[in-house]
Amino acid sequence: MLIVAERVNASRKAIRAALETLDAAAIANEVRIQAAAGAHYIDVNGGTFPGREAELLCWLVDIAQAETQLPLCLDSPDPQALVAALPRIKGERPMINSINLEPERFEKILPLARQYNAKLIALAQGEGVPASTTVEKVELATRLVEQLLKGGMVLDDIYVDPLVFPVGTDSTSALATVTAMREIMARFPGVHTICGLTNVSHGLPARKLINRSFLAGAIANGMDAAIIDPTDPLLMATLLGAEAVFGRDEYCMNLIEAFQDGKLA
Amino acid sequence: MLIVAERVNASRKAIRAALETLDAAAIANEVRIQAAAGAHYIDVNGGTFPGREAELLCWLVDIAQAETQLPLCLDSPDPQALVAALPRIKGERPMINSINLEPERFEKILPLARQYNAKLIALAQGEGVPASTTVEKVELATRLVEQLLKGGMVLDDIYVDPLVFPVGTDSTSALATVTAMREIMARFPGVHTICGLTNVSHGLPARKLINRSFLAGAIANGMDAAIIDPTDPLLMATLLGAEAVFGRDEYCMNLIEAFQDGKLA
Repeated sequence: MLIVAERVNASRKAIRAALETLDAAAIANEVRIQAAAGAHYIDVNGGTFPGREAELLCWLVDIAQAETQLPLCLDSPDPQALVAALPRIKGERPMINSINLEPERFEKILPLARQYNAKLIALAQGEGVPASTTVEKVELATRLVEQLLKGGMVLDDIYVDPLVFPVGTDSTSALATVTAMREIMARFPGVHTICGLTNVSHGLPARKLINRSFLAGAIANGMDAAIIDPTDPLLMATLLGAEAVFGRDEYCMNLIEAFQDGKLA
Repeated sequence: MLIVAERVNASRKAIRAALETLDAAAIANEVRIQAAAGAHYIDVNGGTFPGREAELLCWLVDIAQAETQLPLCLDSPDPQALVAALPRIKGERPMINSINLEPERFEKILPLARQYNAKLIALAQGEGVPASTTVEKVELATRLVEQLLKGGMVLDDIYVDPLVFPVGTDSTSALATVTAMREIMARFPGVHTICGLTNVSHGLPARKLINRSFLAGAIANGMDAAIIDPTDPLLMATLLGAEAVFGRDEYCMNLIEAFQDGKLA
């Protein structure tokens, strides 16, 4: 399971405040605790401060790279911000979060991914209404993956996100999403699937419980990457438990090690 | 989600002791706490005390029925014990746990289920080696369901258990089991699937975590009944979370009610 650590995101109040005051220590701390908690990629999202997206994304990239050798996931829909930030990447190949089927975004982001040898999060999303059923999600994902392959990407570098919506308003969304993951992975052997968890529980109580249940169900349907907060111990325990039980943790060694380290208490 | 409460089982030390001393109060207490915790059926298993199976199963049935109006799940592979216990059932239709493809067991238990209008737990199990792959589980379940239908059962009264084995020794078993559940329910619309959880984590640490992850993954693949301990608050929270997120809790009302009652804390 590839863990993309989500905490450095301008949608969080603490990060927004750090961006406004250019508080590098606060960002560095978020990077550090996520790396220590088991992140594989550090997502960096500088938000949509008008006219400052590129500058802030670069600022985040520099701080993160000073703090960790983990690769980064550049989280911006804005090709200009990516154009500015990608040349600053040192070390391991980055990931770009994200591309979709919108022609302008697709045509600008795909060449950047190729040029900088980046992995890509591919949203099952076009220009029309969001895909809500399994069939729609698989159809959009199929078009997107086929266009990416045609454009020179390889399956192992594509992480399809079928996009889950809050189950409080669409009770079918989580099941449609995990079913779409399964079908997309069957259709394109070697492709990855990924999802952010938090949206699914928007507007409901016991959100973390709902998110954990969704994570276990998604892993049971093949999801092999997730955009999560690795510093949440109950979430990470669920991840380890689901990976062990659904055959993704050889001899359950990761689970046993976490248990011995007291991380499952 | 149909909850079959598992605590009155002779494989548990406390129940075995209560059976040995005919401690009716201990059994009644187990029935009471499970009913209060949200059980829909109370499973009663009197074990395999030589020559006393029928007597002890009848004893458990009488105690349980004095304590609750919930229906019972008669848990015995021994047709003679069932023959003795079934006439004592008052109130709602019982469930029989279980039938399988072994000819002698099949031929004796099916007529009992018909005569007493019982629901049936149907194990994907023949006389040979256990079914370990999805294909084998679905093949055995298909034969069993078809034979039960031919024998006059209706799908809504059949609860197929694909039988999960410990993932510590067969890392593919849980995934094969939930996949089999999905395929069996697709092949026989209206049939139910059920599973005991505890076997899956046998021999591993953090067993309850593993069981919870398995439960969420099974619900995400369609399982609509479970043999569990409803007095385990974390397990029940996972059940509610998974039901809510995977579209099985209309308007998430059960989840919201449990939250308001402080049961998810």
